[in-house]
Amino acid sequence: MSVTAAKGFRAAGIAAGIKENGNPDLALVVNDGPRRAAAGVFTSNRVKAAPVLWSEQALKAGQISAVVLNSGGANACTGPKGFQDTHATAEKAAEVLGRGPIEVAVCSTGLIGVLLPMDKLLPGIETAAAQLSEHGGEKAALAIKTTDTVHKTSVVSSESGGWTVGGMAKGAGMLAPGLATMLVVLTTDADLDGETLDRALRAATRVTFDRVDSDGCMSTNDTVLLLASGASGAVPEYEEFAEAVRAVCDDLGRQLIGDAEGASKDIKVEVVGAATEDDAVEVGRAVARNNLLKCAIHGEDPNWGRVLSAIGTTRAVFEPDRLNVAINGVWVCKNGSVGEDRERVDMRYREVHIVADLAAGDAEATIWTNDLTADYVHENSAYSS
Amino acid sequence: MSVTAAKGFRAAGIAAGIKENGNPDLALVVNDGPRRAAAGVFTSNRVKAAPVLWSEQALKAGQISAVVLNSGGANACTGPKGFQDTHATAEKAAEVLGRGPIEVAVCSTGLIGVLLPMDKLLPGIETAAAQLSEHGGEKAALAIKTTDTVHKTSVVSSESGGWTVGGMAKGAGMLAPGLATMLVVLTTDADLDGETLDRALRAATRVTFDRVDSDGCMSTNDTVLLLASGASGAVPEYEEFAEAVRAVCDDLGRQLIGDAEGASKDIKVEVVGAATEDDAVEVGRAVARNNLLKCAIHGEDPNWGRVLSAIGTTRAVFEPDRLNVAINGVWVCKNGSVGEDRERVDMRYREVHIVADLAAGDAEATIWTNDLTADYVHENSAYSS
Repeated sequence: MSVTAAKGFRAAGIAAGIKENGNPDLALVVNDGPRRAAAGVFTSNRVKAAPVLWSEQALKAGQISAVVLNSGGANACTGPKGFQDTHATAEKAAEVLGRGPIEVAVCSTGLIGVLLPMDKLLPGIETAAAQLSEHGGEKAALAIKTTDTVHKTSVVSSESGGWTVGGMAKGAGMLAPGLATMLVVLTTDADLDGETLDRALRAATRVTFDRVDSDGCMSTNDTVLLLASGASGAVPEYEEFAEAVRAVCDDLGRQLIGDAEGASKDIKVEVVGAATEDDAVEVGRAVARNNLLKCAIHGEDPNWGRVLSAIGTTRAVFEPDRLNVAINGVWVCKNGSVGEDRERVDMRYREVHIVADLAAGDAEATIWTNDLTADYVHENSAYSS
Repeated sequence: MSVTAAKGFRAAGIAAGIKENGNPDLALVVNDGPRRAAAGVFTSNRVKAAPVLWSEQALKAGQISAVVLNSGGANACTGPKGFQDTHATAEKAAEVLGRGPIEVAVCSTGLIGVLLPMDKLLPGIETAAAQLSEHGGEKAALAIKTTDTVHKTSVVSSESGGWTVGGMAKGAGMLAPGLATMLVVLTTDADLDGETLDRALRAATRVTFDRVDSDGCMSTNDTVLLLASGASGAVPEYEEFAEAVRAVCDDLGRQLIGDAEGASKDIKVEVVGAATEDDAVEVGRAVARNNLLKCAIHGEDPNWGRVLSAIGTTRAVFEPDRLNVAINGVWVCKNGSVGEDRERVDMRYREVHIVADLAAGDAEATIWTNDLTADYVHENSAYSS
């Protein structure tokens, strides 16, 4: 159901010919209102793709009526021509839909440093507009895939409240915090203003997408949009709505990790006993980005020494001789030294759970990552992205 | 010639039985004086192995008569017993050599979190002492190898000055700045005090070992020692001596990169046009640590978009639309966008040269790294280190 689970939205996904292999590559999501409120968060990479620069401006203008998304090209590092192309994309969608161009957000994903084939993209917008449907969410989710092996959607509904939050995501490589590298469009039929959407979205991404770190690499195109149509007429309590947005983001984030390029393990790095949440996040990221540890996990080796050497690179509050580490429930490191027998650690399953206890306070945070595999190397040495 | 190229030093390398495969695993380097000045730099990892904690103390006491080095175990994260073992190692060497224990530095390398087999290590010190020789430098270099495929030595002599700087290094994985993960012992017969050695050593490591970043992982055991015997009687000019130390460190650093685990490419990341040297180093490290770029280089794909997306994660001064990137002499990115034809980039050879021009000033720095390969994954998922 994806982005059309909530009332007031239509979507489409088509093959416009941007991808040479003929796979779907263009999605359109339209908010039919009555409200057209929106919020967004974007990559913190200082090298931002043209569609990111455009969509940031569009959001400032206050309302988003439609989102055009393409795979097959990131339109990043493409200079003034790249920005003109994004602008032309928004103009075309606005014309077809009878709205203003500044109400159209644009998202692109694919190879950096290549101009988009506008002769295919612009006619594709007309084709997609003609296929817009209240059941088009799945097709839209399919059209934004790059190296994703599956499309990702999620829906949470409040039966008592009569409102829904749904969404779609793409992303398989270049997954790193602030944000995980991806495009995400969330929709709701709740009747909320942009400020409330912004508050709920930032609260959600901070503890979900921002804590997904597949390979430490941050993209130029990350975009997460939340659009509200108000079509349900329901005005939810903020806390309930924020929790629904968080749940959808969490589910989509887990789907991104579960489909990360070449990965054979999903690794949950849970940092506890930290002096502050910032410390916990810093330690979690350092552990999640340690290539040697990621290789060890791939080899089903509970190599806790690599966890400690990663923790040691951080500025977090801790004493080396008070650190504890558990892998899949076995405390293999106690007080910075040898703990329970590492032979007891069972690592046969896809999910691996590492707990790093800093013994310095009560704060905690969880970062999700993947193992490092020969398949990751193969996929990213053979594929330009 | 290694650590015995300079006069006043003897060394030995033996198989003490620490490694189960019977390979050499214990080295001894002795300074016969007349001077016993020394300087050292150690890992900036906050989780420090017992021998690092011990050797830092020994250096503070002012003179180093001998260094005991073992492979086959890092003696890191081994608690109070691990520190006692390092202490006992120094005591044993001091006893055999007729010196004080606080004059004995200790270096260990190998698996983290496992106690050393002291019943083999202590008798090994006696065996090694009996084999000390002015020609023992190569054997010592061989005995400190872990996953190194070759041993690493280097020598620079001043013919006019009549003095020499020589050294040995080990290190193949866990190579990252501050320092590259490794053990290095340098010796000189120049007649210099500890303060001068310290100044020259820090100046050298800052621009050599500190700028080697094979896999972004920082070890718990990094140690670089510089010992002076004064046996040549020569007192070199500081600048000439410092340059010799820098040259030996640079050579050994390049040998480390050339032998990095699983690597098929040595990548020189040269950052130019930076506002400050710190900016240049930060950008160089960000590029050198980007797994996606490292995979692309492995695939001989001049994927400059991944260079830009790495630069964008830094705090360095730059404007995205003024960035330029050359790969092997071809400016594939100009003004943040598409530059010369990427088809012109020839990447068939082991060395790859990336120039990132920030167009923001005159400062520059070079970081050396490797590509990311399936062999790296294999070696580090099958081997506990």
